[in-house]
Order: sequence, then structure tokens, then C-alpha cells
Amino acid sequence: MDALQFPPSKSTFLQPYTPRHDSNNDLPYTTLTFATSLDSSLALSPGTRTVLSGPESKSMTHYLRSRHDAILIGVGTVVADNPGLNCRIEGVGGYGGEGLQGQPRPIVLDPSARWEFNEESKILILAREGRGRAPWIISGSGASISKEKRDRLERHGGKFISLDIAETKEFSWSDLLRCLKREGLQSVMIEGGGSVINSLLEPRFQHLVNSVIITIAPTWLGQGGVIVSPKRRFDETGTAIAASRLKDVQWHPFGEDVVLCGRIGQ
Amino acid sequence: MDALQFPPSKSTFLQPYTPRHDSNNDLPYTTLTFATSLDSSLALSPGTRTVLSGPESKSMTHYLRSRHDAILIGVGTVVADNPGLNCRIEGVGGYGGEGLQGQPRPIVLDPSARWEFNEESKILILAREGRGRAPWIISGSGASISKEKRDRLERHGGKFISLDIAETKEFSWSDLLRCLKREGLQSVMIEGGGSVINSLLEPRFQHLVNSVIITIAPTWLGQGGVIVSPKRRFDETGTAIAASRLKDVQWHPFGEDVVLCGRIGQ
Repeated sequence: MDALQFPPSKSTFLQPYTPRHDSNNDLPYTTLTFATSLDSSLALSPGTRTVLSGPESKSMTHYLRSRHDAILIGVGTVVADNPGLNCRIEGVGGYGGEGLQGQPRPIVLDPSARWEFNEESKILILAREGRGRAPWIISGSGASISKEKRDRLERHGGKFISLDIAETKEFSWSDLLRCLKREGLQSVMIEGGGSVINSLLEPRFQHLVNSVIITIAPTWLGQGGVIVSPKRRFDETGTAIAASRLKDVQWHPFGEDVVLCGRIGQ
Repeated sequence: MDALQFPPSKSTFLQPYTPRHDSNNDLPYTTLTFATSLDSSLALSPGTRTVLSGPESKSMTHYLRSRHDAILIGVGTVVADNPGLNCRIEGVGGYGGEGLQGQPRPIVLDPSARWEFNEESKILILAREGRGRAPWIISGSGASISKEKRDRLERHGGKFISLDIAETKEFSWSDLLRCLKREGLQSVMIEGGGSVINSLLEPRFQHLVNSVIITIAPTWLGQGGVIVSPKRRFDETGTAIAASRLKDVQWHPFGEDVVLCGRIGQ
């Protein structure tokens, strides 16, 4: 069993940035988490899985997954990486714990329902083995989904959720997050990829992010990678200003990497 | 007098990354230093001076200047910022110390000698006041420089240095650094701007960098800024690989920012 350890001593600095459940809010608690290079790149090129951070950061990611009801990821990353999207921290369900306790729900944003999962998709293998939850796939209300596809997902315990999309072919982040809260998810960890992260960091959406936890590795991937950089923001005179600034900032060296925790400022 | 303090307790972590003089080497010790945003941006747009890091980082920059014989900067930044390029740490020459002791020599890379400095340029004012050294301007051997311009610079204690440039209109970094060493400069702190930094981080030049000291501020400037990201590198099969990775890495939280110290790895 490939369980990961994450000792409590290492998790202390993360506590202020992990979810507090608030049943009075119609939005879930959201944590934006990703690993970049010094040149703010997630990967060497779109569709290339690039290992950036060390083993400690990997354990941290799995620890954070255990603290959230759901993990959210864009379909591009799912297609490129065939990820497991479960939690492998020792003691959660499937890794020494009862049932699926502590396993987050994978949420895949797939507006056109293009993800062609099958029995060999890692995420469904893990669901069959009782090591993770089957995904919920959020697709646009106009997407066409075969009965076979829908049945396969439901047999594993997952489902399609239909949501209206705008003419821009994008979901409204607030509609989407409200939908997840209605479905009973109190907290969502948003892991990527580039399009999802850049969209959520846009000035008009970033207020929907409660915490940001970023791992930075001491490497430059170089020009042409998948870059995290939000759209520009302008003040009332039309002058460019910083797109976003974090507040309540903590930096925590972590092996060769650094972990940055913060909240979106104003 | 606007002198800055930088207590020894704060400088300890920088010591392994500051110059060791080596008179047997025909190259000076080089430190690459700059401040970026999380999206690896130096400024909101070319020619815009953007304050990224806090007052502690400013003091650190001036402390590092006091530890180098020279500060090197590209002409674009000099034209855009009208910088002083001196050292304001309490105790150096002009700020409580003798003569110009501890003041680094400003080196301006200006291949076509386009910088139109005058008596009111901050760097010349500081030279006249005994608060900094006059610049040495490195220009291409074909550049045309008026006698008046040359005289003005020399009256302040500076000079033009002529260096051959390639057809690409760029200096050869090794020629340039060797030239500075021959001129008696044992250590050079390279501060920017974007073109200088990206050029020096290219795979073919980065071995000329001895230390890297980067301040990262917890902000995203947004798309369209002046980005630090080297050219891509490829392995023997033509696959993109990381352009560079630092070794001997130390991260040091510094107010709201983090300071990364490292050396160029292989």
C-alpha cells in the first residue's frame, strides 16, 4: 500500500488556511493549490506532466486533499494526466481508514463532456478498489452524453451534473460553486490546470477564493510553458495595476521548495 | 541623510552567496539580483517603475550593493527609472563613511550609446555630491559618442568603455565580464532589467552566474508585464526540459516577501 505520511508538526502552518465549514454560506470554502516554477509555469507545455516539487510537497497536497470535501480540476488536466485524484494519506479510507472516510470527491469541469474515461482510467480503478470516490463531472447543459457513458460513471458511484454555461463556453464560477454547495460539498480544493487557475484569479472571480497555497520550486521551466498569470487589472484612469495581492501571507521553506499561504487581498 | 540600516542578524543568510574574490580567475564573481511578482514579472509594463517588494528588501539590495565592486544594469532600465545606483547603507562613503568606500561602480550596458544623461541625471548628481561613483558606460565599438557627452561623463569621474558587439547587437557576456575584471572589478551585482536578466539566464550564459538572490512578492502583476523567463532548453532528443534549476537553495521569509538564494545548477 503506497500510503503517504504527513506529520502533524509539518501541518501546523497550514491550519489557518484550511477549511472552516460555514453552513450559513451558500458557497463552499475554496482553496486554490498548485505548484509552479520560478517563471510561474505549471508544466513545460500543455498536456505535459511536469514534476516540479519534491516528495514533501506531494505529501502536503495529499494532506490538503484529506481536509476538503472535494478536489476540482479542469478536463484538460484530467485528459493529459490520467490522475488518481484521491487521498493517499495513511489513515484515510482505503489507506487504513474506514470506508471512504477522508476521501475527497473529484469534480471534473468538462463543459462539452469530452472526457472519454473508461474502465482503465485511474480514477475509476481507484473507485472500484475502494481507494477513492468516483468523480462528479460538471458538463454544460447542452452537452451530449451517451447512455453508456453515463451508466459507466454511475456504476462506479459517480454522476454527471448539468450546469448552464455562458456563450463564452465557460461556467460561471459562482453558479458552479453554489451548485457544489447544494450538492453537500462544504469545501473544495482547486488544483488546476492552467485555464482553471487563471480564470479563478481574474479580478472578477478571485473574491470566490478563500485560501491560496502555492508551492514554488527553484527552477525556471523557460518560455513556452503553461503560465499562471491572471488577466490585467486597470484603475479608474485606465492605468494597469497589479491583478491581485495576497494578504495574511506566510512563507514556509519545504525541502528545496517554498510553500506560500495567503488569502486574496483587496 | 537618507541612510538605510541592515542589521548583521539579517545578513547572515546572505553570506554564503556574497562574493569571494578570486584573483586567479579572469572573470569577476557575479550575483544576479532582482525582485519579481508571483507571475515572474519585474514591472507592469516596459518602462514602468513598479514597487514590488517591501522596505526590508530595499535595504537588502543596498546591503548587497555594498558587498560588490560594481552594479550592472541595462540601458533600458536606466532610461526608464533614472536610478541612483549607489549604496545608501549607513557607514559607506557618502553615508557616514570615508570617501567613496563601499560604493559600487555603476556599469550601464548601452550598446548604441543611446542614454542621454545630463547634469540632472540622478546618478551624476550623486557622483557630484560624493554619494556614489560615476558610471562606466559599456558601448559597442561602432557607437557614435559626441565629445561633449564623453567630457561630461569624464568630468564626473566616469568613462565610456568600448567593446565589440556581435551582429545580434548583443555583447558577449564572457567578453564583457572579462573586460570588467581587467578594469579591476572583482565582483559584479547584476540588477536588471528584463532583457539583461533573461539573456544571462539563457542556457549558454547561465554558467557565468555565481549566485542568484531573488525577492518574490506575494502579488500577481497580471498578463503583459516584463517577464523573467529564460529561453527553453531541449535535451538531445529534442524534448523540452527545464531551462535552469538552482542548487544550494535557501528560502528566507522577509516581511511579506520571500528571498531565494541559490546557485545555478547543472
